[in-house]
Amino acid sequence: MFLQNLLKIQYPIIQAPMAGTDNPQFVAAACNAGVLGSLGAQYITPEEITKAIAEIRGLTDKPFAINLFSLPPLMVPTEKQIEEALSYLQKYYEKFELAMPSAESVKTMIDPEAQLEAVLQARVPVFSFTLGIPDKKWIQAFKQQSTLLVGTATNVKEAHVLELAGVDAITAQSSEAGGHRGTFIGPFEDSMIGGLALIPQIVDAVKIPVIAAGGIMDGRGIVAALALGAQAVQLGTAFLTVAESPAHAAYKKAIQEHDANDTTITKVFSGGAARGIKNKFIVTNNDKPLLPFPYHHSLTRSFRKIANETGQIEYTNLWSGQGGHLAKELKLSELVKSLMTETKIVLNKLASQ
Amino acid sequence: MFLQNLLKIQYPIIQAPMAGTDNPQFVAAACNAGVLGSLGAQYITPEEITKAIAEIRGLTDKPFAINLFSLPPLMVPTEKQIEEALSYLQKYYEKFELAMPSAESVKTMIDPEAQLEAVLQARVPVFSFTLGIPDKKWIQAFKQQSTLLVGTATNVKEAHVLELAGVDAITAQSSEAGGHRGTFIGPFEDSMIGGLALIPQIVDAVKIPVIAAGGIMDGRGIVAALALGAQAVQLGTAFLTVAESPAHAAYKKAIQEHDANDTTITKVFSGGAARGIKNKFIVTNNDKPLLPFPYHHSLTRSFRKIANETGQIEYTNLWSGQGGHLAKELKLSELVKSLMTETKIVLNKLASQ
Repeated sequence: MFLQNLLKIQYPIIQAPMAGTDNPQFVAAACNAGVLGSLGAQYITPEEITKAIAEIRGLTDKPFAINLFSLPPLMVPTEKQIEEALSYLQKYYEKFELAMPSAESVKTMIDPEAQLEAVLQARVPVFSFTLGIPDKKWIQAFKQQSTLLVGTATNVKEAHVLELAGVDAITAQSSEAGGHRGTFIGPFEDSMIGGLALIPQIVDAVKIPVIAAGGIMDGRGIVAALALGAQAVQLGTAFLTVAESPAHAAYKKAIQEHDANDTTITKVFSGGAARGIKNKFIVTNNDKPLLPFPYHHSLTRSFRKIANETGQIEYTNLWSGQGGHLAKELKLSELVKSLMTETKIVLNKLASQ
Repeated sequence: MFLQNLLKIQYPIIQAPMAGTDNPQFVAAACNAGVLGSLGAQYITPEEITKAIAEIRGLTDKPFAINLFSLPPLMVPTEKQIEEALSYLQKYYEKFELAMPSAESVKTMIDPEAQLEAVLQARVPVFSFTLGIPDKKWIQAFKQQSTLLVGTATNVKEAHVLELAGVDAITAQSSEAGGHRGTFIGPFEDSMIGGLALIPQIVDAVKIPVIAAGGIMDGRGIVAALALGAQAVQLGTAFLTVAESPAHAAYKKAIQEHDANDTTITKVFSGGAARGIKNKFIVTNNDKPLLPFPYHHSLTRSFRKIANETGQIEYTNLWSGQGGHLAKELKLSELVKSLMTETKIVLNKLASQ
């Protein structure tokens, strides 16, 4: 298909960027398995981005994507807001024996322009983004060096705006998706649109290729997305449980064992709406004051990191889409093969009906 | 397919019950077009049910379904609750020049057992239900006379329970669906599961056939649902805009012209969570006290009826799924033909990829 040729990938599958869980080895393994690997680079510095890209390139000669948030100018939180949030988070710092961050350090964010510059300088094959659209000058700069641009839409208006901005393809993120909601026009609640409704409406609204993202876990989901008009699919949760995934075994187990109605949309980890498996941290802090996204991420990051590494799954974000229960624990290349085999089986079954 | 043969329908399509909008003529027209017509009978008396079934039978010799809610025993609202709700609804009674109902009349609900008895006595081909499961004695009585039973699940647990209760098929209602949420295990918010994730998980969980419902509007949606493992699809919104639909022209226009992110889940009309297009009534009354479902329905019913009939769409429920924008204004038989033609086109396109 057009998009597959454009992205130069063997299969019409993209490994979703999963900042905090993905890493260069994992992304390169995805690329080497014939899909487009993506690195979520929003929480790392420009220097770390440059290094990560070099690492990916050292491990694969296949194309890959770097993903960033594209947020509007942020409202810096006040000292009072920071204090309020830190006061109820104190017990977690104590539990994990970590020093509380200073208000100053919380206010300091990585410069998004410097991150963009790092990605631009690296001349990556694909640059994807969510939560908005980079300024025109960046779009032009990326296009000049033939980096393919992929934007994220959670509703039809966003798809229109992305097409007008000149992106090469659109990821239609439906409500089934795990992790952060990419909504940038209107409140996220209005754009919790299921894939069966979202994908065909975005396909009809734009002329550029559409990538379906959200709840796709196996050949059934892939064929469904293609039937709805998508040219490729983006899978996050399905890749989280593979052998090469840096996710802790306890997290992988939670993904496979939870029920579809056990995920929820929560802001407690980052200040931004994201889908994850309900756990003690979400339930305990659901009504607590939050810093605006993504400042709150900085407040909870240090103890979540330890919780992630040690499998203390009640204290960290367990991002998962609504199809998580269908995840398999295979080697990455086996998962990709199995996805394509299942796709063929589903297509044959449909053809024989 | 198995289910299609079981239901004795030409096409694997069910016209969803839409109490308040459907009627015997509309249901019979659906049946005569080769799909399973369904009448939503929850708000009509046993005598009206008997009459409606006779009318359907006078207009078609094809099978049809009667649908009821299957609620747990209801908490009768207190006089104070009724007064509170009536006080802010007074302006609507005044606007539509209607007498306010007495507290006593609000408390009086149609006896659900008498409704079940009317459906049973009529020996209908298919009895479908949502929001729970009828008592064992009813299930047995329907099974004894070979009425096919179709229950509604919005999560995997509900599907398990329905299968154990002995239903013949399960409608998997995904979050895209318009109208009332059928959730009966856990809060409805937890079971807002998109079809791409819900359908395959329910298909995997049960041995009986699954019907996909929610956001399916055209051949793309039908093929997607079949790919996900459903044996048939249930369409509501797609049938609302056909020529034979009793829906007012202004409502049909609203369905076709709204954006996918213009629907919302609201309780303001009936006390129960349901998806409809946002309008003035929802925005104005979003935070007002409600009687428990379905008592609140009785409070707003009389003026909604007039608003419906006169196309005053800001004062009534505009139930619509998230795919409403894809609705077409065709004759019912033309819609069904077009759905099947589109289905073939999508299947051919997939086969050639």
